[in-house]
Amino acid sequence: MKWTYIEDISNFKDKEVEIRGWVFNKRSSGKVRFLLIRDGTGLIQGTSFSSKTDDPLFKKFDTRTQESSLIVRGRVKEEKRAPGGFELTIKDVEILQVADEYPITPKAHSTPFLMEHRHLWLRSQKQHAILQIRTELIKAIRDFFDDRGFRLMDTPILTPSACEGTTTLFETDYFDQKAFLSQSGQLYNEATAMAFGKVYCFGPTFRAEKSKTRKHLIEFWMVEPEVAFATLEDITELGEDLVVYIMERILEQNKKELEVLERDTKPLERIKKPFPRLTYDEAQKMLKKKGSKMEWGDDFGAPEEALISEIFDLPVSITHFPAKIKAFYMQPDEKRPELALGVDVLASEGYGEIIGGGQRIHDLDLLEKKIKEFKLPREDYEWYLDLRKYGSVPHSGFGLGIERMLAWICKIKHIRETIPFPRLLNKIYP
Amino acid sequence: MKWTYIEDISNFKDKEVEIRGWVFNKRSSGKVRFLLIRDGTGLIQGTSFSSKTDDPLFKKFDTRTQESSLIVRGRVKEEKRAPGGFELTIKDVEILQVADEYPITPKAHSTPFLMEHRHLWLRSQKQHAILQIRTELIKAIRDFFDDRGFRLMDTPILTPSACEGTTTLFETDYFDQKAFLSQSGQLYNEATAMAFGKVYCFGPTFRAEKSKTRKHLIEFWMVEPEVAFATLEDITELGEDLVVYIMERILEQNKKELEVLERDTKPLERIKKPFPRLTYDEAQKMLKKKGSKMEWGDDFGAPEEALISEIFDLPVSITHFPAKIKAFYMQPDEKRPELALGVDVLASEGYGEIIGGGQRIHDLDLLEKKIKEFKLPREDYEWYLDLRKYGSVPHSGFGLGIERMLAWICKIKHIRETIPFPRLLNKIYP
Repeated sequence: MKWTYIEDISNFKDKEVEIRGWVFNKRSSGKVRFLLIRDGTGLIQGTSFSSKTDDPLFKKFDTRTQESSLIVRGRVKEEKRAPGGFELTIKDVEILQVADEYPITPKAHSTPFLMEHRHLWLRSQKQHAILQIRTELIKAIRDFFDDRGFRLMDTPILTPSACEGTTTLFETDYFDQKAFLSQSGQLYNEATAMAFGKVYCFGPTFRAEKSKTRKHLIEFWMVEPEVAFATLEDITELGEDLVVYIMERILEQNKKELEVLERDTKPLERIKKPFPRLTYDEAQKMLKKKGSKMEWGDDFGAPEEALISEIFDLPVSITHFPAKIKAFYMQPDEKRPELALGVDVLASEGYGEIIGGGQRIHDLDLLEKKIKEFKLPREDYEWYLDLRKYGSVPHSGFGLGIERMLAWICKIKHIRETIPFPRLLNKIYP
Repeated sequence: MKWTYIEDISNFKDKEVEIRGWVFNKRSSGKVRFLLIRDGTGLIQGTSFSSKTDDPLFKKFDTRTQESSLIVRGRVKEEKRAPGGFELTIKDVEILQVADEYPITPKAHSTPFLMEHRHLWLRSQKQHAILQIRTELIKAIRDFFDDRGFRLMDTPILTPSACEGTTTLFETDYFDQKAFLSQSGQLYNEATAMAFGKVYCFGPTFRAEKSKTRKHLIEFWMVEPEVAFATLEDITELGEDLVVYIMERILEQNKKELEVLERDTKPLERIKKPFPRLTYDEAQKMLKKKGSKMEWGDDFGAPEEALISEIFDLPVSITHFPAKIKAFYMQPDEKRPELALGVDVLASEGYGEIIGGGQRIHDLDLLEKKIKEFKLPREDYEWYLDLRKYGSVPHSGFGLGIERMLAWICKIKHIRETIPFPRLLNKIYP
């Protein structure tokens, strides 16, 4: 573009630049006027001097309300005390629009109010920082898989059948057929993994869950790798590597944003391999000792996840779950078929499950049996069964939820702030 | 992973490796057996020698049907005549599964048959090459925007209102409210552009179009940049830069795949700036001269796009369209308000529109007028109008359809081969 972005300002020391942005803040002090400008990539302070206190320039300054849009020309000056290390000596200001009284002021607003104004709230420093980290998080994940030779395979959103039950599915009419919004690309990527060896999909997924928690979005993004020939052990390793890689990248690239969020980064810096690994059996016994009421066969709830966080200060990988609490496609343990070769990785600091995955059934007969057992319509799964007829191999994969990962990184309480326009129970505006 | 992928084989010259994959082909010649192995990342030929023609090893060889899965151990041997430059001297073969008779044979199959077997068809060389290029194409696009400081903003799929009309929308029930599957992230990214300066979204979009053409998918992926302060001129430049960047990357990174597709790359190598630029007026007059029946005010159809391709051997940018054939949010031309500041980029070789975009209305009154004129429900657009109250600025963006771009790059006739699991009129399986 023909103007300069604030994030690039250090390349223009002592040079004239044109900044295009919005009034973030302003103040006066005698013969000086200070204008804090934001352009979406950063903040910079511009100063105007005048010996005359009734200078028309100063009058113009007074009209500039918060979020007014403007084009500012001036000289870049090094200033060690300034947040970014630079200031702007303003030569000229062109006001594009004097903003109406901006609804989001420094005073505290209620969450419903902020959510109704999500389209403006995004401009606030904290929200800006969270979504800036989101951008880097997604880039880090893509780089992780691309650098390891994974092929991106975009799996369909509109699907004729349900991957994991039908109660939480959005339904739509597909030219007089029923179709559902996908909750996972896994089944499809079991097919592409047989064609490309190692693949991942990365797209939006949908759960019409009628629960109102701090951890659930109706629409969220998930990355799902799938690897032909990989075992539970291989995929657990891959998931742990991914978490470590993400943390290194974010700590390196997003210092500024983590500061804005006042995130204590020590718990994140600590995240190195090996992660503690527990079987479900071990975890259940340990929780029982700590006073949990969880019985063998129960799934982990939020209190159990919190308890595990208290015991370990690293993410924890839990494997070998009771088969009956896991999906139909999970490979049973050879020695104890009542166990499924699944893995969940729980974040530290009480953030709970971020990764869920495991090894898939590769034996045709066993998969057919499971499809019957789970009362799934076989005709929908013919193609999925084909994968077990034509060169079936052990294979594994997992899903990592982007918004949960981001909530943990930013240590924010509610997942609704981790996506530009959250979709929540009964909430679809703006 | 603990085994070697064929694409990395050149690092293992004269070393022992373990390859895990599938039988792509095999043949016998006296005392030698040749096994062509595919592992999703490449192909390699393995050879087994034996002085005894009744060697049990050879018997085992004969059982290996096409697509049987196996683990092969052997020594990597440089072999200039081999396609990848290397061969494998087989020491040991472990068969995981002898595949059933594989339905896709070298003989020609009907398209409906192949589409029914899409989950297996993906393993065929041509389909593999197309989707391999898709992976690189998407990576190139993301790198282009990331390197230029654009922030990725995932816009919602579930939306309460229609962006460009309601006739082609998929509808679903959202907790007793109506919701629609998004056809564009643009409106939302006009909000994020005001918060982040320059942004892009990249996700699936949906059109319930009852047309059966070679250019339409029901579900397709689109990248949409949006830039605060950018004009029609700026965004046209950006779109052209993107096309040039993509071509350079694909020609550099996907030589092998373009060869598999027998793509004549000359028309792609030619793609450099400047692209021919025409106003709609100029284009319409030129078409008329060439015998087209298109009148002023009509949109370009497939025949018109083909005609333009015959005149120019580069992509063509067309700007300044009649406002009445464009969306409500398009900025009118200052001097001739019956024109909209839109831009379409047409691919060369008859592939038609790949980019559509333009400058958006930034004036509140004008936008309100347009919303009335187009009979849109104002309450759905309150937040969108807000963007014109609080620091409105000129801004522009465009959308590029991934599958159309890919069809052109690969020069394939039908867009259905450009996505792993295409969704077509009445077609949602597998």
